[in-house]
Amino acid sequence: MKKEITIVLAPDSFKECMTAKEACEAMERGINKSGFPTRCIHVPMADGGEGTMRSLADATGGRIFTKTVSGPLGEDVDAEYAILGDGETAAIEMAAASGIHLLPKEKRNPLITSTYGTGQLISACLDLGIKKLLIGIGGSATNDGGAGMVQALGGRFLDENGNELPKGGGSLGKLRGIDLDRLDQRLKSIAVEVACDVSNPLCGPEGASRVFGPQKGASPEMVETLDENLRNFAEVIKKQLGNDVIDIPGAGAAGGLGAGLMAFMQASLKPGISLIIEYTGLEERVKNADMVWTGEGSIDFQTQYGKTPYGVAELAKNWNKPVIAFAGKIGNAIEPLYEKIDAIFGITEGAVPLEEALAKGPRNLERASENVARLLAIKKDCKFFYDE
Amino acid sequence: MKKEITIVLAPDSFKECMTAKEACEAMERGINKSGFPTRCIHVPMADGGEGTMRSLADATGGRIFTKTVSGPLGEDVDAEYAILGDGETAAIEMAAASGIHLLPKEKRNPLITSTYGTGQLISACLDLGIKKLLIGIGGSATNDGGAGMVQALGGRFLDENGNELPKGGGSLGKLRGIDLDRLDQRLKSIAVEVACDVSNPLCGPEGASRVFGPQKGASPEMVETLDENLRNFAEVIKKQLGNDVIDIPGAGAAGGLGAGLMAFMQASLKPGISLIIEYTGLEERVKNADMVWTGEGSIDFQTQYGKTPYGVAELAKNWNKPVIAFAGKIGNAIEPLYEKIDAIFGITEGAVPLEEALAKGPRNLERASENVARLLAIKKDCKFFYDE
Repeated sequence: MKKEITIVLAPDSFKECMTAKEACEAMERGINKSGFPTRCIHVPMADGGEGTMRSLADATGGRIFTKTVSGPLGEDVDAEYAILGDGETAAIEMAAASGIHLLPKEKRNPLITSTYGTGQLISACLDLGIKKLLIGIGGSATNDGGAGMVQALGGRFLDENGNELPKGGGSLGKLRGIDLDRLDQRLKSIAVEVACDVSNPLCGPEGASRVFGPQKGASPEMVETLDENLRNFAEVIKKQLGNDVIDIPGAGAAGGLGAGLMAFMQASLKPGISLIIEYTGLEERVKNADMVWTGEGSIDFQTQYGKTPYGVAELAKNWNKPVIAFAGKIGNAIEPLYEKIDAIFGITEGAVPLEEALAKGPRNLERASENVARLLAIKKDCKFFYDE
Repeated sequence: MKKEITIVLAPDSFKECMTAKEACEAMERGINKSGFPTRCIHVPMADGGEGTMRSLADATGGRIFTKTVSGPLGEDVDAEYAILGDGETAAIEMAAASGIHLLPKEKRNPLITSTYGTGQLISACLDLGIKKLLIGIGGSATNDGGAGMVQALGGRFLDENGNELPKGGGSLGKLRGIDLDRLDQRLKSIAVEVACDVSNPLCGPEGASRVFGPQKGASPEMVETLDENLRNFAEVIKKQLGNDVIDIPGAGAAGGLGAGLMAFMQASLKPGISLIIEYTGLEERVKNADMVWTGEGSIDFQTQYGKTPYGVAELAKNWNKPVIAFAGKIGNAIEPLYEKIDAIFGITEGAVPLEEALAKGPRNLERASENVARLLAIKKDCKFFYDE
C-alpha cells in the first residue's frame, strides 16, 4: 500500500466565486476523486484584503458575527466581524463598515465619508473580551484619518470653539483639540495589528489624499483640502498626544486610517500576508506536510507583490516543500512566480463568459485538482522519474 | 544529472487554432522552458477528420500539393493532397474537394452535388506513382454514392438510352449501366484505405440519405428520392460488377462514397484513428518512449468514441505508458476517459471570448505544457513520492 501524503491546502478566496474555505473543499474533493492517497489540511488564506476576516475565522475555527453599524455616509450597514478560534483575537475588515463598495459612484465624497462604522465594529469586538485585534484596511471610502473610528469609540474632535467637528475628512482643517477622556478604556488592554501593504505617508505627493483620494470621488480641489486637513490632523495629534505619525510608512493607508490606528491604538502595521500566515498558524502546518497547494481567482505578475499564493509559496520554500497554484485567470508575465511556485494551473474549462466561469468555479477547481493529483499519482508509479 | 526522459507528443489539431504539428511545437516549447530534461518525439495526429491529410504529411515528413479541382457544384476549388514520407502513400480528404464547408447554406443541394473533385484529387495522387491511398471521407456535401468520383477517373454512368447521366445523386435513379472501359487502369495497382467512423449502410432508415441528407440540404421529399436512387445505384453495381455493398457497414458514409470506394476501388474501411496510428508509425514510437502527451481542441465524453486523444491513449496503455491530454475546452462527463488517460488539463487562461482563446491557443498550450513538465520535475526533492 502506498504511503499517504499530506497536502496543505492554503488558497485565497476566488473573488466573486468561492471563499478560501470553499476552495479548500473543492481541492479536497478533486484529490479524493483522484484516488491519490492524501491527507488534506485546510488552511483558508487571505492577504489582508477582502475575505481576510472570513478566512481567519475559517482557518482557526472561529465564529462570525454581524452588527449593524454606520456606513461611510451614516446609513445602516450590516457588517461582519469574527472572533478567531483562540477566543481572544478578533478580526475585522474596515471595508465591511466603511468600504468604497458600499457607495454608488455618485455618492462617493471623501469630504464627508467617515470611518465611524469601523469604530463601532471595534467596539463590538471589545465587547467580546478580546486581547488582540486584527484589522484589514483595504478598500476604504474614507479620507478622515480614522477620526470617525475614534469618535465611535468615545473620542471627540473639537474646533477652536470647543465644538465637536462634523464627520468626514473635510472638517479636519478646523481641528484644534482632541478630547480622549471618554475614549473606550478597553482599548488600552488590547494589541492592534493592521494588515497593510502600502507604504504611503499620510500627506504630500505620496500621501493618502493625492494617491487614493481621486478613486474615492475627490476632485483636484478636494484633494488639496483633504491633504491640508490631514496635515493639520497630524499636527494636532503630535502636539497633544506626542505621536508623530505623519511620515510613518502606511500612515496614508485607507485615507489615513493607518495614521489614526497608530496614533490612537498604538497599532502596528504589517504586510497582510505575513499577518495572516501568523494568525492561521500556517508555518507549523506546512512544516509537517509533504506539499502545499494554493491559489487565487487571478494569478499574474502582480502576485509576487504580497498576494497570497506567493506569500504561501515563500513560506513553503523555506521548508523546501513543493508548491502548486491554481487560478481562475492566469495573466501575463508569470515567469517570476516560478521562483517560488513549482507549477501553476488554470481551472477554467474553456472560452466561456465570465459569469459561467464564476458559476462553475468550484467544479472547475475540483476537476483541475483531481487531474493534478492524478498526475502526481503517475509520478509515483513511473520508475523513470527516479533514475538519476 | 537526471536521466532524460522521452515523451511522444501526439496531439490532434486544435480546430481553428493550430495544426497538430503546431500543437507538438507548442508542447515542446513549454517542456523546454520548464527545464525538465526531455527528448520530444513529434507525431502530429488526426482521427480521419479535418486535418488528417496535413497531420499525416507532417508526421511522416511528407509533402503537400495543391490542385484546382471541381467543387461540389462544379466550381473551381483549390484542394490539397499529400504524399507521405514513404514516397508511395498518398493521403486526401474528400472534404477538400467535395466538402459541405465549400457551399453556403442556400446552395446545398445533394441532388446535384458531386464527388467529381474527389476523383480528380485521386487522379492527381495516381500521377505521383503511389501504391497506397488513404482517404478521409468526413464532411461531405454529396449524396452521389461516389459516382462523380468514378466519372472523374474515367467511368461512365448510363441511362436506359446509353446516355451519360448528369452529376449528382438526383440522377442515379435512371442508372441502368456502368461503363468502366476507360476507368483509370492505375487504380488496379493501388490499395485504398478509407478512414471511416460511421457504420451506416447505404440505404434505408439508417442509410446515407435519411441520416445525413438533411444536413446537406435535402428536404424530406429529396431524402426519399436520394434513398431510392442509391438503392438503384447499388443494384446496378451488384448486377454488373458483382459487388453487393448496400449493407456493408460504412457504405452509407459520405453520401454513399463509402459504397462507391468499396465497389469501384476495393477499398477497405477502417476507424480513422486506427489508420492514422498505423500510417504515422505511432506504436513504434510509443513503445520506446516513457510517456505520451496528446490533446485536441475539445475533449468531452465523446472523445472516447474514436477521437484522437482516446485512440492515442488506448495504444499507449497497451504499452503501459502514462498519458496526459490537453484541451482548449473540457466538456462534461469526462470521467470515462480516465480509464485510459491519466490526466487532462485545460489550456485556456481564464474566461475569455472564443476568438481570444483561439488566438492565444499556442501560447496557452505552451504554458500548460510547461507547468505539467514543471510538476513532473518536482520529484527531485520529494522523498514522499518514492516511499511505498
